[in-house]
Parts: sequence; C-alpha cells; structure tokens
Amino acid sequence: MTEHEQRRQTVAQGLAGHKIDVLLVSSPSNIRYLSGYSGSNGLMFVSAGESHFFTDPRYRLAVSDMPGCAVHVVKGPLIPAASALLKRKKLKKIGIESSWISYQDYIRLKDSLPLGSSLQPVTGLVEALRMVKSLEEIGLIRKSVQVNSAAYSLTLKHVKAGMQEQEIAAELDYQMRKLGAEKPAFDTIVAAGANSALPHAHPSAHRLIENELLLTDMGASLNGYSSDMTRVAYLGKPARRVRALYRAVLEAQLSAVDAVRSGIEAGKVDRAARSVLKKHGLEREFVHSTGHGLGLEIHEPPRIGRKEKTRLQAGMVITIEPGAYIDGFCGVRIEDTVLVTESGCEVLTPTSKELVSL
Amino acid sequence: MTEHEQRRQTVAQGLAGHKIDVLLVSSPSNIRYLSGYSGSNGLMFVSAGESHFFTDPRYRLAVSDMPGCAVHVVKGPLIPAASALLKRKKLKKIGIESSWISYQDYIRLKDSLPLGSSLQPVTGLVEALRMVKSLEEIGLIRKSVQVNSAAYSLTLKHVKAGMQEQEIAAELDYQMRKLGAEKPAFDTIVAAGANSALPHAHPSAHRLIENELLLTDMGASLNGYSSDMTRVAYLGKPARRVRALYRAVLEAQLSAVDAVRSGIEAGKVDRAARSVLKKHGLEREFVHSTGHGLGLEIHEPPRIGRKEKTRLQAGMVITIEPGAYIDGFCGVRIEDTVLVTESGCEVLTPTSKELVSL
Repeated sequence: MTEHEQRRQTVAQGLAGHKIDVLLVSSPSNIRYLSGYSGSNGLMFVSAGESHFFTDPRYRLAVSDMPGCAVHVVKGPLIPAASALLKRKKLKKIGIESSWISYQDYIRLKDSLPLGSSLQPVTGLVEALRMVKSLEEIGLIRKSVQVNSAAYSLTLKHVKAGMQEQEIAAELDYQMRKLGAEKPAFDTIVAAGANSALPHAHPSAHRLIENELLLTDMGASLNGYSSDMTRVAYLGKPARRVRALYRAVLEAQLSAVDAVRSGIEAGKVDRAARSVLKKHGLEREFVHSTGHGLGLEIHEPPRIGRKEKTRLQAGMVITIEPGAYIDGFCGVRIEDTVLVTESGCEVLTPTSKELVSL
Repeated sequence: MTEHEQRRQTVAQGLAGHKIDVLLVSSPSNIRYLSGYSGSNGLMFVSAGESHFFTDPRYRLAVSDMPGCAVHVVKGPLIPAASALLKRKKLKKIGIESSWISYQDYIRLKDSLPLGSSLQPVTGLVEALRMVKSLEEIGLIRKSVQVNSAAYSLTLKHVKAGMQEQEIAAELDYQMRKLGAEKPAFDTIVAAGANSALPHAHPSAHRLIENELLLTDMGASLNGYSSDMTRVAYLGKPARRVRALYRAVLEAQLSAVDAVRSGIEAGKVDRAARSVLKKHGLEREFVHSTGHGLGLEIHEPPRIGRKEKTRLQAGMVITIEPGAYIDGFCGVRIEDTVLVTESGCEVLTPTSKELVSL
C-alpha cells in the first residue's frame, strides 16, 4: 500500500467520529497529502470503501498513476462531477472542509444533491493528521531546511553596501533553486534599516548603506515541503542599542526553543518567549505569535500562540520566531525550524544565530 | 482623488444595481485593486458613504496611508471586526463575494449579524471593472511583458544540451527578478521532449538532449501586474513532424490574434484557433481554451473559451495561447499577451514566434 493509500485509509477511519460517510477534500495541500497531486485544479472525496479524484484534461497525464484512487478527468467545474458521483454512490452524509470550500461551491453542491443528503462542515480533519510528520516527511523538511540555509550562506558572502534589497532577494531565490528547491516557500523578505520594522516587508529598491541592519526571512519549497528561517545581519559594527535588541530577542528565542517538548501546551512555548521580551520591556513590540507548524504549507497547525491549548507531539515540525519591531528604527526576528521530540526538540536550522557583521 | 478612491466610488455606484448597501470584499486581488494593499491578510467593505479596511498588526505600518478609507488593525480573525462595524453602521444588505469567501467565514458572518441583515451572493462585481485596464495599468502590464521577454532572451542564449529543466527555470526566474520583477507570475514551466506534452508540466531534473523540443511558459509579476508567454525552441534541426506541428499551432495562434477586436465575442476568438487545429486534425489535441484575461491575477476574466459570450472591449488584456499535445511525443503551445483595441489588437509580447533552433 502506498503512503497516500495509507493516509486515505486513516481519513476513512476517522469519518465515523465526525458522523459523515465521506469527506470532500477541497484544500490543495490536503489533496496533495492524500493523492500526491500538486496541480492547480483538483478535488477529491474519501469514503470508507473508495476514493475518487477529479481534475481537468490539462492534468490527464500527470494523474495517470494514482494507485487505489479512481481518477476522473472532467471538462468544466469539478463540483458537479463530484456531486453526481456522490449521488450515484448514495453517499449522503458529506463532510465539507468549511474553511477551504467557497460559499459558491457550497451552494452548487447543496443545490445539486438529493434531498436526503446533508453537508456537514468539518474543520481540520486532514490537517490534524498532517501535524505529526512521518519519518519520510521529516527527511524532506530536513532537506528543505538545509537547502534554505545553504542558499543564505552562499548569498550572504556577497552582500555589501550598495546592493538593493530586491537584488539580494533575487539572489537568495536563485541560490535555493540551484540547490534543488522548486521555489521559495513564500515571498522572501529582505528588509534593511527601518524597513525591518515591518514584519512582512516587501524587498524594495532600497540600497543597503553602512551601519544598517539587514533582516532576511526565507524558506524553500522542496518536493512540496517548506522550511522557514529568519536571520539578522549588520553592515558594520552594530550600535549598543541594536545589540541589546538583538540579545533580548535571541534570549526569547532560546527560551522558547528550550520549552519545546512532546506534551507541552503550545501556549506555554509562546509565553516562554513572551515573558523574556516583557522582562526587557518589549512585550508590545512583539506583535505576532511565536511560531507555527509547517510542512506542505508554510503555515499549518499547530499555531504557537499565546492561548493555544494544543499539546505538542513528537514528530511535529514548527517554527520558533519571536521578534521585536521598533517603528522608524529597526526590527529583529530570529527564527528556526524545529522538530519536536519526546524529550525536547531538534533545531533543524543549521545557520548560526550570532549577530553577523558584514 | 486617488485611483483607488475612484475605483471604490465606481464600486459604490454599482451597489444599487445588485440591491446591496455594501460589498464585503474578500478576494485578495480585488482588495489590492481597491486599496493598494498587497499583503496576505486583508478584508474590506465598500459602501456608498465610506470604505473600511481590516488587517492584523503585522501590517500596521504598511497600511498607514490609505486615503479615503478607514483602516482597522485588529488582532485575531477579521470577519468579526468587519461584522461588528457593519452592524454599527446599520448596513443591512451585504453583498459577499461568493467565490472568494469561504463557507466558514460566511457562517461566521451570518451568525454574528442582526436578524434584519441579509447576505447576498455577488459574483464578479469588482472583476468586471478590472477587465478593462486603465492606461496606467496597461503601462504596468507592458513593462511586465517586456521584462519577461528580456529574461527569456537572456536565458535562451545559454541553453544547451546537458542543462536541466529546473536549472533553466531557475535562470529564467533569476533574470526576471534582476530586471525588476517581484517574482514569477506563476510557476515557470520548462518542459523538454515528451514532458512538453503535459500542458502544466513541472520543471524536472531531466537534462536536455540533442533533437529535443523545449517548451517554456513564463510570466513576470511586476508591481502586481502579470505577463504570460509561451515559446518553443528546438535543440538541433527540428524533424519534419515537429515543424508541421509547430506550423499548425502557429497558424491557429495567428488566426486567433487576427480575430481579436473590440466587440467580438470571446468564443469567436477561441473558435478561430480551434478551427485551424481541426483542419490539421489536431482538434482533440487542443485540450484547453485559447486564452484568458490577466492583470493583478494571472487568470482573470474574460475567459477566451469555446462558448464564451463576453464581448471583448478595448483595454482588455488577454492571452492567446492555443496548443497541441501528443502523448509520448511532444507538445507545442504558442502564447502572447495581447491588448484589445478598437480596431483589432496590439500583441504586447515582443519575442519572435519563429521556431528557434538552439
């Protein structure tokens, strides 16, 4: 049995607990997880007895080999094709992924089903399985992390005053591609000086100058799996205020990493970082949560946020990325990709967390 | 009045026609079109009197300047914040973008609104405005097209047997970035030999060999605006069968370009390409539609498909991209980005459509 078949079997076993006969899978990442399909137009359903996959003729060859899953290549919208088959198979209690299916598709589905059918919103059924990674998935993430860090090191060697943020971002993306990544896992952030105070800055035409901080937040997507890392460097010798800010964030980051282990509440990991920043008077400057799961998506459960009750489990892969942002001055964020283990965690990211002077 | 304010005013004027007081805008591209915001977490509503924009604290600085629009930076999900304000403003007939809002958000919204409120599904209100581009937008697309073609030319010079598809794709993306693009408008396709028969192939580790066809489908995203081009080259002297296939697709492409003008039905343009391929016995090998609009999205209305009734208008920007795919042998697609004018069209893509021998 293939990995995808096993996963579909696990989903099928979970259907009864949600009081559904079948799950209609709309999330592209869930579809990839359950079928291997990575195109832009897929839909599938999984029931106890069988699985069906729908796509359009552009992908006919790409989906020719999907063991244990019936493939339907249809012209036009996929929902009516799935709906007709659900009807024919007499699958009546249909689970829908309510955060992924559009309201329009929901209505189309509802209007085309027999009166006896019902649609049950289901949240996070497949995502819950995806949280804990298999050894094979951990291997893929590890590779993604390594490629990402290698691309950063290679690029950083050439960074100097006069270069544009967007030029550096282009170089980072090129290096990760040359090392085997399909693409960046998200838009690479390169933010110098005051731009670094925007947690989600776009790389601009701004040219680096001496005595400026340089924040880089990047991830690779390799075989579909993501990595995520943020590092800060400085052009010249960092001023005392920058060093103090950096040290505070690093202390918070190490404290959160230290808290990670199987069984701990995600919220506790967040608070480990938050309390350190509070001690340094930087609580209000930490405007996001401490981290997030990653895998086929760059952001996936669990969230490592203040009030999260989810307990971490061995095999989860998460980011730990506290930051502090001071408007008009600069921002510092330090982020690793981390594997939760029974006794603690393994920091997968190999890149040094020293404040590098360029 | 800024361009964004003007667009919101146009939307506001269209509300009555849809019997709504306000439009809740969920589509990221529609939000960008109406506000300039290009981040990953935004929501807005537009009514006759006022516009409101919602995002999270990560984007506080990025949204500090949005003339004519009230900005709300909120923690947690955006729907409850928007809902509370809609209630307070007594905006009762609320249009929702039914193909963009998730079923989950729809339910959250519905459950939090007073009894007297109603949610009206609306499709394509903002998209209809976006179809016809302003002179400024055409200028941006033109720039995107030029950068894209320049990146292709620069890269093609170095392509030779032994290179990997993914290596070439990395180079194309790097060149467009160096020329100013933010990123590729979609995953660049580089497909050699039999891989080119998959209309949406992923660049693989396959190394080019002599006497192989090379299909490249690429677009740049520049200031948010897309370009889209497909070209075919050949390593060596193409065999007669390849030349014949190429000539048939080129004839179809030129025939469709020739049909483009203000006032024509989109379906007629599609059929212009399709009938040429039929003449060559390739109708069944043309498995997709002839083209699509592009702008802030790589695929946006109008669709240039067989039965599309939409009439083209001057100022629309579309692709013309017929193709023919022969399993196990190769595929040919030729694609330009084209501006519809009163009397015909302007092919924006400057790259030659000769079958280049490398």
